Amino acid sequence: MQALIIHAAGDLRIEDVETPPLGPGQLQARVRFGGICGSDLHYYQHGGFGTVRVREPMVLGHEIAGTVEAVGAHVAGFAPGDRVAISPSRPCGHCRYCQQGLQNHCLDMRYYGSAMRTPHVQGAFRQRIVCEAAQAHKLAASVSDAEGALAEPLSVALHAVQRAGPLLGRRVLVTGCGPIGALIVIAARRAGAAHITATDVGDFALRAALKVGADEAINVAARPDGLAPYTADKGSFDVLFEASGNQRALVGAFDALRPRGIIVQVGLGGEMTLPVNAIVAKEFDLRGAFRFHEEFAVAVELLNKGLVDVKPLVSATLPYRDAGRAFALAADRSQAMKVLLDFE
Amino acid sequence: MQALIIHAAGDLRIEDVETPPLGPGQLQARVRFGGICGSDLHYYQHGGFGTVRVREPMVLGHEIAGTVEAVGAHVAGFAPGDRVAISPSRPCGHCRYCQQGLQNHCLDMRYYGSAMRTPHVQGAFRQRIVCEAAQAHKLAASVSDAEGALAEPLSVALHAVQRAGPLLGRRVLVTGCGPIGALIVIAARRAGAAHITATDVGDFALRAALKVGADEAINVAARPDGLAPYTADKGSFDVLFEASGNQRALVGAFDALRPRGIIVQVGLGGEMTLPVNAIVAKEFDLRGAFRFHEEFAVAVELLNKGLVDVKPLVSATLPYRDAGRAFALAADRSQAMKVLLDFE
Amino acid sequence: MQALIIHAAGDLRIEDVETPPLGPGQLQARVRFGGICGSDLHYYQHGGFGTVRVREPMVLGHEIAGTVEAVGAHVAGFAPGDRVAISPSRPCGHCRYCQQGLQNHCLDMRYYGSAMRTPHVQGAFRQRIVCEAAQAHKLAASVSDAEGALAEPLSVALHAVQRAGPLLGRRVLVTGCGPIGALIVIAARRAGAAHITATDVGDFALRAALKVGADEAINVAARPDGLAPYTADKGSFDVLFEASGNQRALVGAFDALRPRGIIVQVGLGGEMTLPVNAIVAKEFDLRGAFRFHEEFAVAVELLNKGLVDVKPLVSATLPYRDAGRAFALAADRSQAMKVLLDFE
Amino acid sequence: MQALIIHAAGDLRIEDVETPPLGPGQLQARVRFGGICGSDLHYYQHGGFGTVRVREPMVLGHEIAGTVEAVGAHVAGFAPGDRVAISPSRPCGHCRYCQQGLQNHCLDMRYYGSAMRTPHVQGAFRQRIVCEAAQAHKLAASVSDAEGALAEPLSVALHAVQRAGPLLGRRVLVTGCGPIGALIVIAARRAGAAHITATDVGDFALRAALKVGADEAINVAARPDGLAPYTADKGSFDVLFEASGNQRALVGAFDALRPRGIIVQVGLGGEMTLPVNAIVAKEFDLRGAFRFHEEFAVAVELLNKGLVDVKPLVSATLPYRDAGRAFALAADRSQAMKVLLDFE
Repeated sequence: MQALIIHAAGDLRIEDVETPPLGPGQLQARVRFGGICGSDLHYYQHGGFGTVRVREPMVLGHEIAGTVEAVGAHVAGFAPGDRVAISPSRPCGHCRYCQQGLQNHCLDMRYYGSAMRTPHVQGAFRQRIVCEAAQAHKLAASVSDAEGALAEPLSVALHAVQRAGPLLGRRVLVTGCGPIGALIVIAARRAGAAHITATDVGDFALRAALKVGADEAINVAARPDGLAPYTADKGSFDVLFEASGNQRALVGAFDALRPRGIIVQVGLGGEMTLPVNAIVAKEFDLRGAFRFHEEFAVAVELLNKGLVDVKPLVSATLPYRDAGRAFALAADRSQAMKVLLDFE
Repeated sequence: MQALIIHAAGDLRIEDVETPPLGPGQLQARVRFGGICGSDLHYYQHGGFGTVRVREPMVLGHEIAGTVEAVGAHVAGFAPGDRVAISPSRPCGHCRYCQQGLQNHCLDMRYYGSAMRTPHVQGAFRQRIVCEAAQAHKLAASVSDAEGALAEPLSVALHAVQRAGPLLGRRVLVTGCGPIGALIVIAARRAGAAHITATDVGDFALRAALKVGADEAINVAARPDGLAPYTADKGSFDVLFEASGNQRALVGAFDALRPRGIIVQVGLGGEMTLPVNAIVAKEFDLRGAFRFHEEFAVAVELLNKGLVDVKPLVSATLPYRDAGRAFALAADRSQAMKVLLDFE
Repeated sequence: MQALIIHAAGDLRIEDVETPPLGPGQLQARVRFGGICGSDLHYYQHGGFGTVRVREPMVLGHEIAGTVEAVGAHVAGFAPGDRVAISPSRPCGHCRYCQQGLQNHCLDMRYYGSAMRTPHVQGAFRQRIVCEAAQAHKLAASVSDAEGALAEPLSVALHAVQRAGPLLGRRVLVTGCGPIGALIVIAARRAGAAHITATDVGDFALRAALKVGADEAINVAARPDGLAPYTADKGSFDVLFEASGNQRALVGAFDALRPRGIIVQVGLGGEMTLPVNAIVAKEFDLRGAFRFHEEFAVAVELLNKGLVDVKPLVSATLPYRDAGRAFALAADRSQAMKVLLDFE
Repeated sequence: MQALIIHAAGDLRIEDVETPPLGPGQLQARVRFGGICGSDLHYYQHGGFGTVRVREPMVLGHEIAGTVEAVGAHVAGFAPGDRVAISPSRPCGHCRYCQQGLQNHCLDMRYYGSAMRTPHVQGAFRQRIVCEAAQAHKLAASVSDAEGALAEPLSVALHAVQRAGPLLGRRVLVTGCGPIGALIVIAARRAGAAHITATDVGDFALRAALKVGADEAINVAARPDGLAPYTADKGSFDVLFEASGNQRALVGAFDALRPRGIIVQVGLGGEMTLPVNAIVAKEFDLRGAFRFHEEFAVAVELLNKGLVDVKPLVSATLPYRDAGRAFALAADRSQAMKVLLDFE
């Protein structure tokens, strides 16, 4: 079978790889779709991000859905033909964080297509995959494989929303409306947010945010003072989801955020210079949100029950053989939200 | 103008009352609809509940919507003709609980149509009402007066959901599907519950629960072991909303509730005999939920934005002159969820 | 070596038992002291409690401290001669609750001297024990073996306090001042409670509560209205720890507990008839507290640093050969708080 | 009477001021001691901080204790001769934040000796003061006036600890051991922290931290890698209190703070450049802490009961006529923690 392997910045190759043997407790699946994530783009464009660098050939990809082909020993509940979304996350289960229910901070995490550790953890942009049964979640007949491939980024968004605490009736601001920001709009709406304002610097992203349920979309490049109406009485928003990784987005929202406002920082943005005095005086609560754990099962259940609709976020589906074109499209924020690779 | 006045158990009269003068900070409104609540029924059928007894003539009612007729001095944001839902709750704002943001525990609360204090607080089943502007919340054109009259019980349901903490992705059980139970189904769904099972002893109520979004409805009179599938591995549900006030409903859910499960008790049920050992050993968290405060504004906003749909719960609308018939219907759980009185 | 084995109610025998082999990851220790717990008393007096019955001979005991004699393979950090408190709790680490950090709800828990499962888990009232290294916690030179034997009930108290949330500056009521109630006084004081009132029906227990830091002790048998001064303005206490398992203690505290007050129920008391209306109207938050997990290490650290003083609670130390007398003394609330068995 | 009035940076004068009339609900007190706070120093040295500037003559000071001289109408519970600590905080009680129990974010706050609003709120470095009775809290006979003057900064520390949530058994790092940092050590210990490490760049401050209960003090100027032992397994500390306002202190602690670690930022430090990626990936929770509200009463109660000991932090007491020397001493971190002005 074939896989998409990154060798260095700009050097992405289609190569033949072996299918690993199917062990007990495992499933073998044909991969149908794989979504291109921001981290995939970083590996492709820059060879990594921060101190995380591609140091050896690595199969990319961690957002996939496909069909079960074979079921290992001691696996219950799956049969060939089952359509599944597959979580890229394999925590060890034994370390102090796993034993505290914080599996996303596992000391021995294996996460598909990640160069955080060496040897790198090989990814899921491949035609066939063998995974632990616990990673696979069955898709309902009403859910397409393409939607299934969005279970992973939806999990990231759900986790960000969980980090915010209850949203029912809350006023929410989402800065940055790429795929994660837009999925946060969906998740925050599902969680009962009463009002959602989305900001971005591009109209394509903002249109997507409106399509998936934002009450209002503000282009802060065109209208830098677009949040001014929300600054009276020390600020209006209860919760800010910062999904751009951009310092100006974060700091620019401070005046519109009420005292004791919660900031969930999802966007990875390197160093930012922040007015810490404002964080102190308004007693903000700035919380990082990183990956997910139990949210993957929730994502699939919400999709299966039709309680969220991620279809508007699939911008394009291209054959994996056109990976270069697909990656270029995924990188173009004026044209694309989520771009899927088709592995069939 | 006329009002519905309870004099004693079974003695409900239509009488002429004066319209109070319109003071500064106040609004005068024509009442369009008033919803009959369980407490109204208790006053009518039994002259009160527990130690709360009708000791003097009292206008009943606290679930109303109507149209602004006149606006007092120093009131901004309202004009004659505005359609509004009116909150029955007037906390003092000064006591220790108000100053802690716990206005529903105000030491000097005035709540429409309540005999908790003497002189009783006169209620809102009347043709014309004068209220504080802060009690009134404007209805969008898309929301009918009938829906507006449900803002109050919806607030009760939203408050119960707030007491449970975040519901996104959680598995929820609602026991008792009268109007409050059904509104909790709506609110829990809006707050992101992944699965909602509703139980009751009557099929009419259970059909209503399904209509407003429950995944499953179990008649525990017909199937006393209906929750058995949820008892494996110490229980499945994360949260129980007990809205029946019935000891058997509460205790019967314990085996299906997971360790650390949250129980929000909304139904008022007098004394109950509970297996406290189970509460200890499974470390349940049983929380009372009483009335609401900030949730009224949230209820109206969710209605205005179409984020909740309470229309399926309006069973009938009768002229206030037919109050006796309306109360009889409201008391018949095989036929009615919410019954509205029409004051025009 | 010898062990204390319960065969049936009233039938407690000293018998020879084999020392199990020392496996990898394990320690072998000489047991010095073993504290008699309420559950040991129940097995002895009644053959069990509720549905938990002694069905086969079982070594009693789960509150012990002793000295390491031998260290198994792959164990770091221990050497013969180390004095240790040993936790009786061995969760499986794999089940859904362990993976959520809720090890006290483990689906496959092994807890010393418990007849909850069959075969029963053999206990620690024995001269020599083999345990997992993770169960052992080193005692500082400043901490006696007797204090070490109280690490287990102190853990129960610490867990109860953790269940209450932050106590700094809070007003606390403890009902029932047996060993657990008194240890909760200690733990609540350590956690920053500003005021602690303790109630009981016996003066011996109340004196102990004062000795370990309660501000006030009320004998509610002698003064049934002793909490009346705390009932103004809907109640004064922020938190109630109910450690008696007695319905009258729990219900009797309701009027003195403020709205939104937190009740941590620690005492196991079978069925109780409760005024659920009060729980609803005052929005109490009644939380069960059961055993402990991470609190055992905390208990030993607080003892080692002298941040808590449990010495006043050791009422007597008797040779294990006098077990009958020791159990009788432990059951006499007018003379004894914690009674220790000496296994040397 | 006389007062200490700041006119501009470096221009602090002793001037005669009128005693305001005593209104209903008010007390008149002779001020005994006034503690010099960092903000007083900023006004004196720089004429303000950030955008807060002295624009008109303002009496400095907000940390005081004294003796009641006269009691206004409608005041219960006070009599001339009562020794009191006086809170500098007067929230309006009516605004949306006061009604949510967030009085420290009051939209119309009056806080002694603050130039945040114009006209400035006159301060408490004066011989006689008239305050609302609700601002005064009686000191026990066992508590000196000097300790009483520390109730205000102790309240700040208690509020910071409240912002962290429960500390019982937690591992705590305090960076910056000026008066606030040292008081946080006291408060964190009182709240049950199992381990407290304090860091600073000066040995005088670190000795003070040890004196008030820190387990360990690290001079990070002398030993920049002093926290290295705490960085294994993604970090050891559960909670960081950042009381230096220094970016290097904050960022330098990240590696020693465990995933999901809580950071309470108390120090006001202007802009800081932070590795936001680390906040995201370790899911830190960075919370501002600003002033206090209900903590003032708690501070006085803890002092009155001897549950905290702030005496080691009083470095010197000087007559108010030596204000210049007192301010110079207060600014010298190698010699002084809290410096008090004596107004008698």
